[in-house]
Amino acid sequence: MAIKTFAQLMEAALEVGPKTVAIAAAHEQEILLAAADAEKQGLADCILVGDRAAIKEIAEHGSIDIGRMMIIQEPEPKLAARKVMELVRLGHAQIAMKGKIETGDFLRAALDREVGLRVGRLLTHVGVFEIPGFDRLLFISDAGVVVAPTMEQKIEIVQNAIYVAQRLGVKEPKVAILAATEMVNPKIPTTLDAANLAKMADRGQIKGGIIDGPLALDNAISLESARIKGIKSEVAGCADILIAPDIEAGNMLAKALTYFAKAHMAGIVVGGKSPL
Amino acid sequence: MAIKTFAQLMEAALEVGPKTVAIAAAHEQEILLAAADAEKQGLADCILVGDRAAIKEIAEHGSIDIGRMMIIQEPEPKLAARKVMELVRLGHAQIAMKGKIETGDFLRAALDREVGLRVGRLLTHVGVFEIPGFDRLLFISDAGVVVAPTMEQKIEIVQNAIYVAQRLGVKEPKVAILAATEMVNPKIPTTLDAANLAKMADRGQIKGGIIDGPLALDNAISLESARIKGIKSEVAGCADILIAPDIEAGNMLAKALTYFAKAHMAGIVVGGKSPL
Repeated sequence: MAIKTFAQLMEAALEVGPKTVAIAAAHEQEILLAAADAEKQGLADCILVGDRAAIKEIAEHGSIDIGRMMIIQEPEPKLAARKVMELVRLGHAQIAMKGKIETGDFLRAALDREVGLRVGRLLTHVGVFEIPGFDRLLFISDAGVVVAPTMEQKIEIVQNAIYVAQRLGVKEPKVAILAATEMVNPKIPTTLDAANLAKMADRGQIKGGIIDGPLALDNAISLESARIKGIKSEVAGCADILIAPDIEAGNMLAKALTYFAKAHMAGIVVGGKSPL
Repeated sequence: MAIKTFAQLMEAALEVGPKTVAIAAAHEQEILLAAADAEKQGLADCILVGDRAAIKEIAEHGSIDIGRMMIIQEPEPKLAARKVMELVRLGHAQIAMKGKIETGDFLRAALDREVGLRVGRLLTHVGVFEIPGFDRLLFISDAGVVVAPTMEQKIEIVQNAIYVAQRLGVKEPKVAILAATEMVNPKIPTTLDAANLAKMADRGQIKGGIIDGPLALDNAISLESARIKGIKSEVAGCADILIAPDIEAGNMLAKALTYFAKAHMAGIVVGGKSPL
């Protein structure tokens, strides 16, 4: 059954049982609160990598119970990130999580040839959104990792997003390749990429979902808007996955949902040995 | 006084008195309803250019009162757009409006050397948004006309947006030049453009507003988010104007606000002899 809310996602995670999560630069209150909460609910066992003294002080000051968590002393964030990747690589943890460290530094550790999680595929970001008033989870990619994807990279972005949606029970997700317009316009290169991706899916070169594009955001998610524009498409108006043309567009879409539409977001980086 | 809601905007427009609006390809129910409503409220006198028989039938069928409106027979949308530009150019109308015609075709008529509204400046789109739960109008540009703006064009986009905000009473609008991150990153060209625009404003090369960038959407509009990121800026957290890096990002931001955050939007194209 497709997971349609974060509450259902939580139930599914509880059924699977706790995963071991290694957190890089865990010396931050928000992070420790989330870790304690996840442990309490039986979702995760946490390994905290960071400034041990700072972690203990923050926990004490905020009355956060970190008694059951292992702490590994590594105050320098970049080294903490490397340590976290090592833990995952060696199988001591299943998930690498970012604490008080720049996203770029965290990803550089994940991509490191020596300790990183590369398996020869592209690492891509998939945002999962629960939006008030919207009837299903919406998956958006790539809003956080790949800056200006080439066509080859867009194929991997689409494939990774389909994988995440399928893991959350959407058997054959509907994928909209977004652009500023639904018309293929030689002057707008993103519409050409979108048309190419859609045709690749028609030819079976991208698998697991129903893919169409270019579509504008309105006609990707609103049946009414798709109807007014007269678009005939299995995806128009009912997309599960939105593929942004680049990180700028994806990032703005994701942040508009979070800040103005009050959506809840869970972000995940896939394509490596384990999720980030 | 700054106009903060569409209701206040309506009041201000009523004080100015009705403008003559020429509508290209007016043979559509939504358009006729809006025209009749604007006339009834004393906001506009409308000239309908389009398929006369279709206009009359739609009006009759929908009980829409178009009795006071002049109708000019021109069933072909592209020619109707040219006629509308001519009316504005000759001073018979003050505003050109798009009916049932592709945006591209409408703009091509506006840009036409013979009948168009060019005055040597760039035509740019400014979207004005009223967002539920947000304390002020938000201006976004360019989400509809300039596809991949050069630095020179971005300067005009910023300047036009400042002009529109000022006309709506925001004396010194705060302008956020958006990118996927607030850090200047040599690998992300849009952050470099944003930094350049901000510095041009410091040097007085762009006037009339307080300009900063790069800023990500969250730290442009949320004081809380700007504080957490430790950004020191007069604009961060309190932007009136958001400048998108390109039409894809702008379009997605605008549509996310309209469809998911239930915002009301009024779009205008400025930079020509008269607004579109």
